[in-house]
Amino acid sequence: MKRTAFFISDSTGITAESLGNSLLAQFDGIQFEKITLPYIDSLEKAREVVKRIDTVMEQGQQRPIILDTIVNEEIREYIARCKGMMIDVFSTFLKPLEIELGADSSYSVGTSHAIVEMHRYKDRIDAVNFSLDNDDGARIQQYDKADIILVGVSRSGKTPSCLYMALQYGIRAANYPLTEEDLENPGLPQCLQAHRGKIYGLTIDPFQLAAIRHERRPNSRYASLDQCSHEVRTIERLFRQERIPCINTTTFSVEEIATRIISEAKLNRRI
Amino acid sequence: MKRTAFFISDSTGITAESLGNSLLAQFDGIQFEKITLPYIDSLEKAREVVKRIDTVMEQGQQRPIILDTIVNEEIREYIARCKGMMIDVFSTFLKPLEIELGADSSYSVGTSHAIVEMHRYKDRIDAVNFSLDNDDGARIQQYDKADIILVGVSRSGKTPSCLYMALQYGIRAANYPLTEEDLENPGLPQCLQAHRGKIYGLTIDPFQLAAIRHERRPNSRYASLDQCSHEVRTIERLFRQERIPCINTTTFSVEEIATRIISEAKLNRRI
Repeated sequence: MKRTAFFISDSTGITAESLGNSLLAQFDGIQFEKITLPYIDSLEKAREVVKRIDTVMEQGQQRPIILDTIVNEEIREYIARCKGMMIDVFSTFLKPLEIELGADSSYSVGTSHAIVEMHRYKDRIDAVNFSLDNDDGARIQQYDKADIILVGVSRSGKTPSCLYMALQYGIRAANYPLTEEDLENPGLPQCLQAHRGKIYGLTIDPFQLAAIRHERRPNSRYASLDQCSHEVRTIERLFRQERIPCINTTTFSVEEIATRIISEAKLNRRI
Repeated sequence: MKRTAFFISDSTGITAESLGNSLLAQFDGIQFEKITLPYIDSLEKAREVVKRIDTVMEQGQQRPIILDTIVNEEIREYIARCKGMMIDVFSTFLKPLEIELGADSSYSVGTSHAIVEMHRYKDRIDAVNFSLDNDDGARIQQYDKADIILVGVSRSGKTPSCLYMALQYGIRAANYPLTEEDLENPGLPQCLQAHRGKIYGLTIDPFQLAAIRHERRPNSRYASLDQCSHEVRTIERLFRQERIPCINTTTFSVEEIATRIISEAKLNRRI
């Protein structure tokens, strides 16, 4: 039987969800039913949450796990009345932090918070627009404004990685697909040569590449293992010859690809 | 003087960063210099981290705050030797969870983790491709496969919101811009009528819309406050008449828009 876990927040729930997933992933043998409840920002909503948690208990299940990142003390205390096992992130960590910093924490998500978010919003939108405008070599004249330019064969993961960097960190990431034609010529394409320091390569296992391309264009030469192997071999040789740092995306999630590139290329987060 | 905070992880660092930002945001009066150090997955890297933290101390600063989500116990214990104030997320929460669940936690990021990630990767890429293919009304024939279709005037935040839902949750989000022409006719455009249940509206403050459009096309009619006010008024009337649920994006960050829509439209996360 599955154990139920609730990730509860009075905001987006992203922190609670991400922390909860990391913690529960450490228990291999146990299956969890995970439920995220964001925007629990009133006592009325808190009442419904407590009812929902207690219903799980009453249905004969084991105590649900509750992990919350609720800033509002009143709502948090109300939810603490539930019959689940509560892991409260803010009360656990804010007290020691208050002592260390010699300051009281504000339990309110006041106006200053909203202003920060607005600023982050604009940076993010700008970065997303930049990525979309500079996707797949569409507009190479903006490369001087790019923080990074990903290069790789078609379907090696460039676009999602660029968009993740844009959305999560406001980084302006362009990408350029090295086509068969590019790969036939020696060295980097002309349009990339002036931006050497910003180039980062993606490579991928040819079998996986073939599988991905096959979904897009079944039984095409483009998706054949021969073609994929050839392109990957050629691009990996190019990366070595031109000393372009690169990452093999085969076993990585989009956020792993993005955060590894940011870390290794020492890119500054804009948000 | 700024206080330095390090967010350290042996993985992406996304959880540490997001939790750290949330906690420190509760201390209004203190300025922090925040440094994220992901992929600290060897004792060698841990040694460099400790050196870096202790250097901050020696430069006469106050104790740095260290918040870590390191799964590997050996690395975690090594970093605990530093002179900073350490908030260790896993050791704080895993012990009580082990007692509650009656099971030991695995301190390893073994093979099962990688498989989960691979699966998530594919769902994510599929969702991102879906969003890009169905961006700005480009390919309305795929709307039956969409989990949600965002509608709104140009530059109201549709594309970033769709991409965030795709990347973070694997949700297939299409979007359709309601053009001036669409807005002149009564009711919903033909191509949306069969998908009523999936439609979610975005609206925005006309002043902010004008500012955003102005950056894109300065001094155009498109960016004029008159035009923006007219479009927003018309679309809000349409949302009311057609009973389309909607969200005003003006003061929200992309993740807030995305998580609010997911929550209110009761969308299932695919990852």
